[in-house]
Formats: sequence, structure tokens, C-alpha cells
Amino acid sequence: MNSSFRRLIRFKDENGDIQYGDAVSDVALVGQKVIVYLGQVPWDLKPTQLERVVSEVLCPLPYTPIIYGIGLNYKTHITEAGFPTPEYPTVFTKPPDALNGPFSDVNVPEECLNIDYEGELCAIIGEDCRDIHKDDDPLNYVLGYTCGNDVSSRYWQMSQRSGQQHGYAKSFDGFAPLGPVLVSPSAIPDVSKLTLVTRVNGEERQRASIGDMLFSVGDIIRHLSRGTTLRAGTVIMTGTPSGVAFSSDPLVWLKNGDEVEVEISELGTLRNRHIFK
Amino acid sequence: MNSSFRRLIRFKDENGDIQYGDAVSDVALVGQKVIVYLGQVPWDLKPTQLERVVSEVLCPLPYTPIIYGIGLNYKTHITEAGFPTPEYPTVFTKPPDALNGPFSDVNVPEECLNIDYEGELCAIIGEDCRDIHKDDDPLNYVLGYTCGNDVSSRYWQMSQRSGQQHGYAKSFDGFAPLGPVLVSPSAIPDVSKLTLVTRVNGEERQRASIGDMLFSVGDIIRHLSRGTTLRAGTVIMTGTPSGVAFSSDPLVWLKNGDEVEVEISELGTLRNRHIFK
Repeated sequence: MNSSFRRLIRFKDENGDIQYGDAVSDVALVGQKVIVYLGQVPWDLKPTQLERVVSEVLCPLPYTPIIYGIGLNYKTHITEAGFPTPEYPTVFTKPPDALNGPFSDVNVPEECLNIDYEGELCAIIGEDCRDIHKDDDPLNYVLGYTCGNDVSSRYWQMSQRSGQQHGYAKSFDGFAPLGPVLVSPSAIPDVSKLTLVTRVNGEERQRASIGDMLFSVGDIIRHLSRGTTLRAGTVIMTGTPSGVAFSSDPLVWLKNGDEVEVEISELGTLRNRHIFK
Repeated sequence: MNSSFRRLIRFKDENGDIQYGDAVSDVALVGQKVIVYLGQVPWDLKPTQLERVVSEVLCPLPYTPIIYGIGLNYKTHITEAGFPTPEYPTVFTKPPDALNGPFSDVNVPEECLNIDYEGELCAIIGEDCRDIHKDDDPLNYVLGYTCGNDVSSRYWQMSQRSGQQHGYAKSFDGFAPLGPVLVSPSAIPDVSKLTLVTRVNGEERQRASIGDMLFSVGDIIRHLSRGTTLRAGTVIMTGTPSGVAFSSDPLVWLKNGDEVEVEISELGTLRNRHIFK
């Protein structure tokens, strides 16, 4: 779809008002003077001539109807883990309240043990769609791309506590930080060329080419839209590559105060401290 | 919580306007003259003196933030199937667009094979809640109870297509019919005394006491609210007893035109035809 923006941010301006604006790349977001868009939701914005100064960067989405997550979607990760190649994307969900800002703290509840990061490319749906025709490109319904961290409590994800369902362990409030910038597909001709890097306190833990994904963004959207209406604002987290804490030896989980960065080329860097209650 | 109603229905009146009203038990709903409530959502209604005639009964909820489903929650079913007793409720989700009316058709997409019913007691959250204190009763947040059918495509639920995640196979549009009546907890002092019966074209397939549930409604709400805000309007489908088509021998799936009834004592009967595209 034709997004009205190139690099959308949602932000608090110098007066504390929440605004949408178009950010310049390669310049710090806070302090930037940006052209403001008028509208309530990123899929229905009108450009203005107004300029405002960014004082705080918020989640690019004011809300989401639902967040879909995809398990096991990087070929090297699947091979390395010795899993059979899945026939279809493995789908789970995170509820709307999991949404979190790009630089906000992830507040980890006391009972959520063994906290892990999953750096992921996220696609945001910009137009309601269902049963996308085989001659239609699923990417036509993408409003933009951004970085995400599918924060997970491996304690709750263990089979004996989860019944093998991934969702519960990943559904706690604020466990889906997203951002900082929602980048229009027109600015990214080929997402498979992008590189994803995850760092914990500056130390690199994950590095992968988006082109190593088993199911492409288009494949995933087509699968999710089968008999199912995908609403504008739906978040699709496309899966994580190898290098998560869960597969580290010795096992080292996130600790109180740890800062996780998810950087994707062209999309910027998501950065969240994890605060344990 | 104190619901303002006893037996709430959402309906089209004689003028085609959508209304909330309090229904009389043991009388056919269509044609009943009922006292109307003023409001947009079932958790914020005000009684009036107005009466209207019911011409069509709708889903008691105008929308839902999310539908939670629980797997494997009847003790006889777990024993019969030879599964180990789970430590915690097994949680999956269905998205908002799965919601369907109590007498509406379930439209089954062409690619959704091996369609099955799951008759279930449903609890609706009436007040936002999170981390319910151990001295607080989770049932205080229940707005009401109703019947539900967790319609499932066993084809998509098979491990090799689902990665063992239950949600996808149950998330198609309209795969969560609900109703017909939302009954206030004050009218049901003890849900464990209720009996659930599921019929296909009038033939009984499932019969269970709600008291046979492994995790009670309160247990489930407490588990779901751990670190997670449950919003008003959230639907909790509490699991199905034995007798689904999946465990029939020989395997007999639902066919085009089949009518599935889920009847729970005190709550009435949900009745939906399944139409295959």
C-alpha cells in the first residue's frame, strides 16, 4: 500500500502533545525537528506544513488489534537446533497490552522467570485483508516495517507449564516493545537484504540476514489471512534467528537492568531496559 | 461484580435497532417483550422502563478484545485420553473476528478441513484486572456466563501444520459462536453444578458436569491475569469435555449444513449451522 510517510515516528513534542511525524535517518530522533502528520492512526494520516521537536519517541502504533508471532523461521536456526523444517509458519499470539514503546522499560513480573530476548523484523498491516488472492501480493497490505523484541519467559514456555503453547509465556504486559521507526515499504525495496543484530548490554548475541527466513513476510501474511480477517494495525513478528539466551551454554538469562538492543539495517535500533520487580 | 442484568441478551428489536435487554428464562427468546438497557457495552448498562420485542438474538458482546481458550480441562477427558494431568491451564487464543452470534451460520472456508465442535462454558470479564491478589476472588471480575463452541479445523491443528500451536486452527472468522444469554453470576451461585450437553443434528455427543473441570473458572482467570491485564469484554472459553469428533471412531467430521447445539443448564442453548463453502 502507499503509506503517506517514509520513516514514521509517533512522539511527544516540546509541549507534551502526542504527534506523528516523518523522521530523518542517521540523526538522533530526540531533538529532531520533524514535519507533523494529522490523524489518529498510522494508516490514515495527512501531511501538514507544521514542524515539531521530538522530546520522546513512543511506540509507532497507538494500539493493535492483535500481535501474531512466528516460531522457528530462520533456516540456520532450524538446522542448528536439529528441528525438522516446518510445512507452514508456526503461529502464536500476544495480546494488545503486550505492546510497548521503543525505549520504554520492560517491567518483568516477579513470577516470570528465565527472561529471554528474541530480536525480530515486524511487519504492520495497514489495510483490512482476508484470503489474499494468489494473483495479489500480500506485501500490498503492509503499512511498514519496524524492529521488535518478542520478550519471553522460558520458565512459562516449558512444556509442563505451557502445554507446548508458546503464547502464554510471551503475553505479559509490555512484552512486545516495537519501534522506533515505522518504515514505509517504498523505502525498503527488498526486506530480505536487511540484517538483524541483537545486543545485550552492547554485546552481540544475534546476527542474521532477513533473507535467511524460511517463510517470507508475504508467505506469513498469506497464511495468517486464510479465512481470517487481518485488521489494520495488526503486528506480525516474523520470528527470531539463532543466538537467544535459551540456547546459550551455560544458560545466562536476562538480569535486572539489562539493556537489549534490536537493530535492523534501514530500520534503526530498538532499545529497552528490563526491570525485574 | 454486580452486573446490572440477570439474563442479558443483545438483540434486534421490531424496528431493526440493536438493543440490550433482560430475557425471561424458559420462554422462546424471539417474540419476547423485554425491558431494555441503555448503553454500548454489557459491562456499562443502565435499566430503563422501555420495552421492546426481540426479533433476532445477536452475540451478547458487540466486540471482544481477545478470546482465550483452554485445552484439556475435563478430568474424565484427560484420564480417557491417557494424557498426564497438566500443572497449569493450557492457554491459546482466538482473535476478535472469531466472535459469532448464537444462531448465526458458521461459514467454513474451503481450505479448513476436518471441522469439529467443542461445547464450552464461557466466562466474560466485566472489569479490567491484573495480578488478582490471593485474598481476592477472581470471580469478582466475571460479568456473566454463556455457552460457546470452540469450532476447530483439526486439519490445521495437526502438529506438522501447526507446530503444536492450537490457535491457528481455531482462529478463522466466526469460529467462536457465543450466547444466546449472558447470565449474571448472581443468578448462578455455583457454576460447578451446571451440566453441559453438545448435540449434532439433535444427537447427543458431549455430556459433562462443569464440576468435572480440572481448573475452575477462578483458577483460569487467576492464571491468565498473571502480569497480564485482562480487559472488560475478554472471553474465556474454559475447555471442552470428551466426545468431540476428533476422538470418534470411525472419525466423522461435521458436514455442510450440520447444526451444532451447546446447551448448558441455566444458560440456554447455542445453535449454529455450519455452512461449507
